[in-house]
Amino acid sequence: MSSVLLHDFIVEEHVKNALKEDIGFGDITTDYLVPKNERIIAKLNTREDGILCGIDIVETVFKTLSNEVKIQKFFKDGDKIKKGDTLAVIEGPARAVLIGERTALNYIQRLSGIATETNKYQVAIGDNKARITDTRKTTPGFRMFEKYAVYTGGARLHRFNLSDCVMIKDNHIQYAGSITNAVNKIREHLSHTHKIEIECDTIEQVKEAINAKADIIMLDNMNCDLMKQCVELIGDKALIEASGNVTIDTIGDIAKTGVDVISSSAIVAKAKTLDIALDM
Amino acid sequence: MSSVLLHDFIVEEHVKNALKEDIGFGDITTDYLVPKNERIIAKLNTREDGILCGIDIVETVFKTLSNEVKIQKFFKDGDKIKKGDTLAVIEGPARAVLIGERTALNYIQRLSGIATETNKYQVAIGDNKARITDTRKTTPGFRMFEKYAVYTGGARLHRFNLSDCVMIKDNHIQYAGSITNAVNKIREHLSHTHKIEIECDTIEQVKEAINAKADIIMLDNMNCDLMKQCVELIGDKALIEASGNVTIDTIGDIAKTGVDVISSSAIVAKAKTLDIALDM
Amino acid sequence: MSSVLLHDFIVEEHVKNALKEDIGFGDITTDYLVPKNERIIAKLNTREDGILCGIDIVETVFKTLSNEVKIQKFFKDGDKIKKGDTLAVIEGPARAVLIGERTALNYIQRLSGIATETNKYQVAIGDNKARITDTRKTTPGFRMFEKYAVYTGGARLHRFNLSDCVMIKDNHIQYAGSITNAVNKIREHLSHTHKIEIECDTIEQVKEAINAKADIIMLDNMNCDLMKQCVELIGDKALIEASGNVTIDTIGDIAKTGVDVISSSAIVAKAKTLDIALDM
Amino acid sequence: MSSVLLHDFIVEEHVKNALKEDIGFGDITTDYLVPKNERIIAKLNTREDGILCGIDIVETVFKTLSNEVKIQKFFKDGDKIKKGDTLAVIEGPARAVLIGERTALNYIQRLSGIATETNKYQVAIGDNKARITDTRKTTPGFRMFEKYAVYTGGARLHRFNLSDCVMIKDNHIQYAGSITNAVNKIREHLSHTHKIEIECDTIEQVKEAINAKADIIMLDNMNCDLMKQCVELIGDKALIEASGNVTIDTIGDIAKTGVDVISSSAIVAKAKTLDIALDM
Amino acid sequence: MSSVLLHDFIVEEHVKNALKEDIGFGDITTDYLVPKNERIIAKLNTREDGILCGIDIVETVFKTLSNEVKIQKFFKDGDKIKKGDTLAVIEGPARAVLIGERTALNYIQRLSGIATETNKYQVAIGDNKARITDTRKTTPGFRMFEKYAVYTGGARLHRFNLSDCVMIKDNHIQYAGSITNAVNKIREHLSHTHKIEIECDTIEQVKEAINAKADIIMLDNMNCDLMKQCVELIGDKALIEASGNVTIDTIGDIAKTGVDVISSSAIVAKAKTLDIALDM
Amino acid sequence: MSSVLLHDFIVEEHVKNALKEDIGFGDITTDYLVPKNERIIAKLNTREDGILCGIDIVETVFKTLSNEVKIQKFFKDGDKIKKGDTLAVIEGPARAVLIGERTALNYIQRLSGIATETNKYQVAIGDNKARITDTRKTTPGFRMFEKYAVYTGGARLHRFNLSDCVMIKDNHIQYAGSITNAVNKIREHLSHTHKIEIECDTIEQVKEAINAKADIIMLDNMNCDLMKQCVELIGDKALIEASGNVTIDTIGDIAKTGVDVISSSAIVAKAKTLDIALDM
Repeated sequence: MSSVLLHDFIVEEHVKNALKEDIGFGDITTDYLVPKNERIIAKLNTREDGILCGIDIVETVFKTLSNEVKIQKFFKDGDKIKKGDTLAVIEGPARAVLIGERTALNYIQRLSGIATETNKYQVAIGDNKARITDTRKTTPGFRMFEKYAVYTGGARLHRFNLSDCVMIKDNHIQYAGSITNAVNKIREHLSHTHKIEIECDTIEQVKEAINAKADIIMLDNMNCDLMKQCVELIGDKALIEASGNVTIDTIGDIAKTGVDVISSSAIVAKAKTLDIALDM
Repeated sequence: MSSVLLHDFIVEEHVKNALKEDIGFGDITTDYLVPKNERIIAKLNTREDGILCGIDIVETVFKTLSNEVKIQKFFKDGDKIKKGDTLAVIEGPARAVLIGERTALNYIQRLSGIATETNKYQVAIGDNKARITDTRKTTPGFRMFEKYAVYTGGARLHRFNLSDCVMIKDNHIQYAGSITNAVNKIREHLSHTHKIEIECDTIEQVKEAINAKADIIMLDNMNCDLMKQCVELIGDKALIEASGNVTIDTIGDIAKTGVDVISSSAIVAKAKTLDIALDM
Repeated sequence: MSSVLLHDFIVEEHVKNALKEDIGFGDITTDYLVPKNERIIAKLNTREDGILCGIDIVETVFKTLSNEVKIQKFFKDGDKIKKGDTLAVIEGPARAVLIGERTALNYIQRLSGIATETNKYQVAIGDNKARITDTRKTTPGFRMFEKYAVYTGGARLHRFNLSDCVMIKDNHIQYAGSITNAVNKIREHLSHTHKIEIECDTIEQVKEAINAKADIIMLDNMNCDLMKQCVELIGDKALIEASGNVTIDTIGDIAKTGVDVISSSAIVAKAKTLDIALDM
Repeated sequence: MSSVLLHDFIVEEHVKNALKEDIGFGDITTDYLVPKNERIIAKLNTREDGILCGIDIVETVFKTLSNEVKIQKFFKDGDKIKKGDTLAVIEGPARAVLIGERTALNYIQRLSGIATETNKYQVAIGDNKARITDTRKTTPGFRMFEKYAVYTGGARLHRFNLSDCVMIKDNHIQYAGSITNAVNKIREHLSHTHKIEIECDTIEQVKEAINAKADIIMLDNMNCDLMKQCVELIGDKALIEASGNVTIDTIGDIAKTGVDVISSSAIVAKAKTLDIALDM
Repeated sequence: MSSVLLHDFIVEEHVKNALKEDIGFGDITTDYLVPKNERIIAKLNTREDGILCGIDIVETVFKTLSNEVKIQKFFKDGDKIKKGDTLAVIEGPARAVLIGERTALNYIQRLSGIATETNKYQVAIGDNKARITDTRKTTPGFRMFEKYAVYTGGARLHRFNLSDCVMIKDNHIQYAGSITNAVNKIREHLSHTHKIEIECDTIEQVKEAINAKADIIMLDNMNCDLMKQCVELIGDKALIEASGNVTIDTIGDIAKTGVDVISSSAIVAKAKTLDIALDM
Repeated sequence: MSSVLLHDFIVEEHVKNALKEDIGFGDITTDYLVPKNERIIAKLNTREDGILCGIDIVETVFKTLSNEVKIQKFFKDGDKIKKGDTLAVIEGPARAVLIGERTALNYIQRLSGIATETNKYQVAIGDNKARITDTRKTTPGFRMFEKYAVYTGGARLHRFNLSDCVMIKDNHIQYAGSITNAVNKIREHLSHTHKIEIECDTIEQVKEAINAKADIIMLDNMNCDLMKQCVELIGDKALIEASGNVTIDTIGDIAKTGVDVISSSAIVAKAKTLDIALDM
């Protein structure tokens, strides 16, 4: 069954390419050593605490190799998992399980690592209304999965790509002459279904953005005092995104300024893989 | 011009998919704001020290968007770069440069991060003969690039995938009955062009592997004393790989045991992106 | 040079598939009859008035077949063209021009037809502020091109696909219990960069949508009187989209109600191809 | 079960691409609002009379999204359907049905529209022996489906692409010097399994084509009197195709001239979508 | 420049896949040993007499690896080549030439082998009017190239695939009841642009096929006497194809019976590669 | 169930492309003549002795066309089959069986031909320890299958492609200056998991290769006396491969020299298809 955002038929295609990448011309160890009819039972165990992400992809990996593989899942994506938990039991042809092991783990370890890291940032925000959000700094060819992991970890997703939200930055402003001009020019063309976000470095820019009726104002690389001023100025006239210098240590203070979302590339780019293993 | 291992026509295909992932139905900010004939000059600068990796891919990204883009490169992959260095100057249609920016950086930041991390491990090995090597723990769909970065960082590459070296592990040994049986069975089938590596946890296994004439013996999760014993025992009868508990802090001591290669998934899985930016 | 929204490298891929579809195992007429070195000059002429769309794709078609083809373009996408206008002169190997003719025309005739139809609707809106917009009722595998033609014809584009704007319809409301519940539930998950549109059939639903702070309210299948009431009620609290019973005859009256956008599948689904021909 | 000409495994690939085009990074409305286990029953109803085409593709769309979807079909492709008819009942996960709705309808509405239009032309031919046939004027990337719809509507298909029948036109004749030369030159190369068709504008050309033993003679843009003369002249020495100025009003008279097939791009290019809807 | 039937953009795609197949993760010999800027001159020489086929594909292989490669061609496809002839001189980056060598030869050796074998059969036919033709017995994924080689060798091509000519065999006849029924049923559906061929084992079947106005009659596995009888019976009422027991020794006698084409899978399936080499 | 080295999901993709190649726009004979619900039983019989290879691919071909096809297999890949043996019985929709016939046979005839030819060479080696091995001289796009057939026929596979074993040839030696230099330079870069093979023409080169500790020494185009000398010289210091002038007549004598493997492109390039047929 497809997960939110991630459809089975799309995952299957990605998994096939990943398996081809890892299998090459065949697993010369397993194919030559393990008899075709041999069966195996393997447990998917976590050796670290975290947020699970990718359990259905693990299933897809093994079923792509053999539709005789059966998998019993004890947790679902988004669940908290604790060191020692058995996440799933996999039963099927030994060749399929041994050959798919590394690819399956490559997905679930990385995605659970991202979900776990994301969740830490959200937890650090505490009771503030802010939500952590991601960026477009992702691994080429793997964004859909990384975004899914970020969502699973509790984040509010940022735009998916260049086509689903306007983001006016320094360079764009220069070509247009001013924030006001830029917004006006965009509005001539823009779909009514898309929002406009403006990156602002100064309070003057924020004021101009408010007047231009930006949907979202990004406070870029401001200190908390300045952010707080901007937040008051903006009120509910626009959504407010904080960006820059976001770490697990600073995010609490940033959240207290009252911003709506706090974006960080670190939740993807600096996430470590979660130590999940397959024990036969 | 193609780099070692990484061919232009293969990179182009990957880059096109990455661009499609990021562009979606078009960059609604840039396309609506920046006139078609506007040109731009941008500098690719590094804000961190490290080992450069991916400079030719950056070129491919921009040239895929417009063959009018010109790029002057001041460094090449594998070069040491220092905070503040300008790596390249890019000149061309402003739309192409602005639209390709994020994708180009996603490649070079991640690959340079891996090359840099790999290099730190190799440096930590010092004058010992050992070489750092990688594993198959890579991002699905991105292995060719991650392996290239590892190589660029100074590592000796491990096998690329399941088809180019035999790796006999616990489970395989169980199916065969013993290391000796496993090696014998493999030899009936195996290409004369491929090697056999055996994962050993104990000195008894190492002895059996020597007798079975393994090409490579992996010392898995052993302490340094035990490794040293094994190294002496093996002599030049096989290549020796150390695996497990490899960190930047332990790798020097591991290297002193006399092993030939030290494998670590951390150089890929835990590498941070290198902070490289495009300044317009 | 890439057009707004439509990138060369993406068009090239689509064109290659279209050419493969039309060429099969080779053009057995042209290949057997026309000598390889024969050259030709052809004029791309329009036999109907309309809005041009797809001139750069025509170029891509011929250049895919032979990079010796040269094309001189006298109009660009979005231009008004009149019966008898020569749009471009194509010079090159006769085989390439004859083989590519049908595919090139298949793109430009259909896209110019859509742009022309779209433009008629926009013209019929007259001085009213409303803008015509499209729907997701497109030809499978051809949406990017059809959307581009709609944009070229002067429309404001609707959402590209299911992932770049929320559209809450009857069925969704039923699952949530009410419009209010639906919006609240969505807001827990939704990216701050995405808008929420709600399809409303009655004035009661419109009121609830206003209270729920919908970004866009669609007035679905309402008569003009009811629409006018709703427009007054909504004011500037949301963008207003009119939908249903939109024809070239009714669109003027609908626009007078004060709505912001008027969506119609007819501008794509019922557009006729524009009669553009290649005269040798 | 595969239909005539259209194989399941080929349709599946096209459908997957169409779904990716419409789903993007996920249906943010349905995924966030509709619980995963919710099920739905939907009726596929027609709101217009016509000829059904694409019912099996509808099934493929929904089954691609979830293999739990069940569909009970009451009509098959080629059947006459009347306003109000329920064509099929679909039962399954609500998410799959809601997400697939638009894509499924995009296929069946367009294909049924083409089949219906084609059928009108065939009906207008009445008791004459002529059969309506199509052209290569199709939507790039969608020809296989449009040809299938034309066939379903009762037409005799024209050549599929440039490789399965010779069609000698003006330009080809010029390169060869004369019709006779062109046919002779082609016969040196041509597969014995392929036919030769010659486009003729005048009775002189028709005579030359008969002498050259063309398999098919196309009477291009002739009036009915001239066509009748040509038909008598040709007798059973070649198949006769009428082309040019074919409308629903003229086709009856054209048919009376005794031609074998009457080709028209309008049955594809000017067909309107048939109004078929999914009622939940 | 594209050859007859074989378009550059289609060849390029096939060549890229072939190169990926042979390069894997990089040529570890050449990449590690040959400096990037080293250049080489290589001669493409033939060590056997034959018919050349694939010289342009050789060019595509090397240019795919590096657009700096230059190739001077002294022969073109279809030319007779003699042992010792230099077919082309290739100059460019040594890496590109060494890495592409095997793939380039794999195309040209096999295609020239097929063209040469085909030509022998055509030569053995002598002055008789018959032409050798091929079958659908080809290597999966390589048919377009094998058909091109057959054509280059002087054959008349048979149908390309199942969609461009009807071929009624035993099984089809059984389902229809008789040859007459089969032809009648087909004619209800068949495009006017496609021919009907009927496989006949006996003179009775031939008579029925003539009456049914088959376009082509295949005399399957008949001896020469029987074939001669059938040829006389058929006259010019249909094209005549001989099939079965066709060898280089029997083809002359078969041709003397007066048949139009003689089909043989051997020209592809039993062709040996032609010994063409790259001398540096 | 996947075979050794050849995975179902990879075979399925290749088979789909092969079927598309053969089906084009549909089987106009079968689709128009054979009713959709008609079923058939067909026997896969061999008309020649040989080694079976590809029986599972036959199954994949038919199941790709219809999952209602059932196949009962009496032999498995690698089995000796005798003229007259029924290899499998296929039951299912007549359309699927008739449409898939040629493609299924194209795989199994060619692969069984290669396996059979390979086996003859291995048998000719007799009791000598040598094993026949293949080369990279394969059909572009079909290597995985040809290698699988070679393996099935009893060969030891050579390297799969340029990335899984070093092969130092004349040209490489020239760039490095000497065999010794070449090996030393390679060792700086090479993965510890990959072997080095050196092509030697003379006994002096063999001596240098031994000193350089090559893993494999290829004796290229030597006569048997010289080979025997080299074999004695090398002893167990390297694996020994004989290459050049390998025919079914010479291979026995070559094997007697004591070499480990004997490589021949003929087992693939000159193998004839095995005569296997589908009898309905």
